[in-house]
Amino acid sequence: MPQDRYATGLARLREIDGEAGERVVASLADIAPDFARYLIEFPFGDIYSRPGLDLRSREIAVVAALTALGNAAPQLKVHIRGALNVGVSRDEIVETIMQMAVYAGFPAALNGLFAAREVFGEDAVAAS
Amino acid sequence: MPQDRYATGLARLREIDGEAGERVVASLADIAPDFARYLIEFPFGDIYSRPGLDLRSREIAVVAALTALGNAAPQLKVHIRGALNVGVSRDEIVETIMQMAVYAGFPAALNGLFAAREVFGEDAVAAS
Amino acid sequence: MPQDRYATGLARLREIDGEAGERVVASLADIAPDFARYLIEFPFGDIYSRPGLDLRSREIAVVAALTALGNAAPQLKVHIRGALNVGVSRDEIVETIMQMAVYAGFPAALNGLFAAREVFGEDAVAAS
Amino acid sequence: MPQDRYATGLARLREIDGEAGERVVASLADIAPDFARYLIEFPFGDIYSRPGLDLRSREIAVVAALTALGNAAPQLKVHIRGALNVGVSRDEIVETIMQMAVYAGFPAALNGLFAAREVFGEDAVAAS
Amino acid sequence: MPQDRYATGLARLREIDGEAGERVVASLADIAPDFARYLIEFPFGDIYSRPGLDLRSREIAVVAALTALGNAAPQLKVHIRGALNVGVSRDEIVETIMQMAVYAGFPAALNGLFAAREVFGEDAVAAS
Amino acid sequence: MPQDRYATGLARLREIDGEAGERVVASLADIAPDFARYLIEFPFGDIYSRPGLDLRSREIAVVAALTALGNAAPQLKVHIRGALNVGVSRDEIVETIMQMAVYAGFPAALNGLFAAREVFGEDAVAAS
Repeated sequence: MPQDRYATGLARLREIDGEAGERVVASLADIAPDFARYLIEFPFGDIYSRPGLDLRSREIAVVAALTALGNAAPQLKVHIRGALNVGVSRDEIVETIMQMAVYAGFPAALNGLFAAREVFGEDAVAAS
Repeated sequence: MPQDRYATGLARLREIDGEAGERVVASLADIAPDFARYLIEFPFGDIYSRPGLDLRSREIAVVAALTALGNAAPQLKVHIRGALNVGVSRDEIVETIMQMAVYAGFPAALNGLFAAREVFGEDAVAAS
Repeated sequence: MPQDRYATGLARLREIDGEAGERVVASLADIAPDFARYLIEFPFGDIYSRPGLDLRSREIAVVAALTALGNAAPQLKVHIRGALNVGVSRDEIVETIMQMAVYAGFPAALNGLFAAREVFGEDAVAAS
Repeated sequence: MPQDRYATGLARLREIDGEAGERVVASLADIAPDFARYLIEFPFGDIYSRPGLDLRSREIAVVAALTALGNAAPQLKVHIRGALNVGVSRDEIVETIMQMAVYAGFPAALNGLFAAREVFGEDAVAAS
Repeated sequence: MPQDRYATGLARLREIDGEAGERVVASLADIAPDFARYLIEFPFGDIYSRPGLDLRSREIAVVAALTALGNAAPQLKVHIRGALNVGVSRDEIVETIMQMAVYAGFPAALNGLFAAREVFGEDAVAAS
Repeated sequence: MPQDRYATGLARLREIDGEAGERVVASLADIAPDFARYLIEFPFGDIYSRPGLDLRSREIAVVAALTALGNAAPQLKVHIRGALNVGVSRDEIVETIMQMAVYAGFPAALNGLFAAREVFGEDAVAAS
């Protein structure tokens, strides 16, 4: 039932992307509220909730893809945070991004590493 | 020492990409033999040999990135095979590719799934 | 209700993509049957069924985007056919693709035009 | 005659992109003045002035393509404004961008929606 | 005068792309004859005819860009041939393509090298 | 020997990218120091140090590719500076970027020109 997709998706979104995910949803309220609903229902309700691949691997896949595409910096940062949230270590995130130098070039990897540094740095600030 | 990077890389290439990897290397012999060496030394000798991320996760990252980029079909097939070789299951590969519908669109995911079917199908033929 | 999204989506898929769309769905049966369902439910059940933009404009947008991306030739052909199916004329399709020379370069536009010629040519064969 | 292409193009540029288009042309004066001329002559004098596709559809195609490519944010904003200028409604622009979630992924669509919100917001400020 | 742009462009097209360029133009006759004219006038009549950069450097730039984009294989082959036609050596073409491994990844460079091998091989066949 | 690749690469990096290159290397110290080493060893120690293509042509190729890809603005600026450092003139850089309008579209070329203006402007400031 649709309600279930939405509820399941919202729980998944909160688990993975945390506050950053909720901010994205909130930011759509005035421009495209239906798109906020789709975002919760399809990616998080349908895809992220499938049992065949653990969340850690899903976030590694997403960090890799967004680093390689190189044209979605805000979403890359949300998912670097998301990867941390589901148990991927900082080192593993850095390794995933470095691996992209081979498949999408050094500039893509560099910009991914700088995004990671920014996300990791927020924790340092929050902890101080 | 360079010799070590090459030897380590060649072992890694064989472990991950198997015969398909060796065919790529061989196919460069006439056009760019130095590039075959770089391919062994940097991606496989340097990057894939780093301890901070397991090979399974590395191949999931590569299958995700090449599916999302959508412009390197031969290499995507080599790495779908590579993912199988290092213990990623067919289901996990399919999940990784489906996840890309969210981050790079349905056409990219569809073409990734068709590549996977082709690679999986080779096994069926080989087994018959 | 999910059933509705599926039924609505399937009707939309048939209206827009016709046989080519059904072939794509059928081709997923062995590798990723759930993805066939998502394809019907989200793009066609959710997005294409929204009232705010006519189908003609939606297909012009899709032909433009797939021409510009340049990495999804099979889907571009399906949607050139789809554009014809919802009333976009051959001339309008050609103009849409030519416009992409400005935004994605001449190679992208050329490959889009060659895809259009192929799709238009199938009609000539079918009519003879 | 070249003069005609330039004059026709300049009129088209003003009709579609308005002040934003003229700012782009002016901004090229010191770095590449010939490129400003080409920009007026080829995209606007040649392509946008062709009769086979209405301006509304052309701008829908361009907003779709630039959203999907995801690597030309300033030009996307100019053309969201351009779409408004030639009679595409805010709702139609939002629908066009949402459609791109299917063909280029959710991050591309999200960044397109945020660009639209920014452009729509300028009007609110101007009107207050 | 337009006639001049066309005549200049056609001469440039023949000088750079030779028969392959004329085949592209001819192939547009049935689907988009105006686009064949634009292709001659803008890229070749306007851009390639500018004095500020030698043809060798222009073709190196184009081979680099099409290798990096990785989504326009037919045009990459035409321009590898074009580079040879204006005096870029085979070795220099191979070096240009290898350089792209750094900026667009190894798969892009590999596919560029395989395109080069195909073009170089046509000469061997023609010479035998 | 590895030491040689590093020393050769560092000299090349300094020759081409100057201070901007060293800043990139320094900026990696806290997040991925090994990646700084790879950046020096593979792109600069291996590729840029090959004899088969002069540095001017290599930088023209890189400026072209990064302009066309359009998703790595910081690296494009570093290499516009790098092109100047190895003797490519401002005019030649502008021509290289304008050429990309044909192969990757006007938005990519525009953003490349704006990056060039920024880099050229730094010199004006430094000289005043």
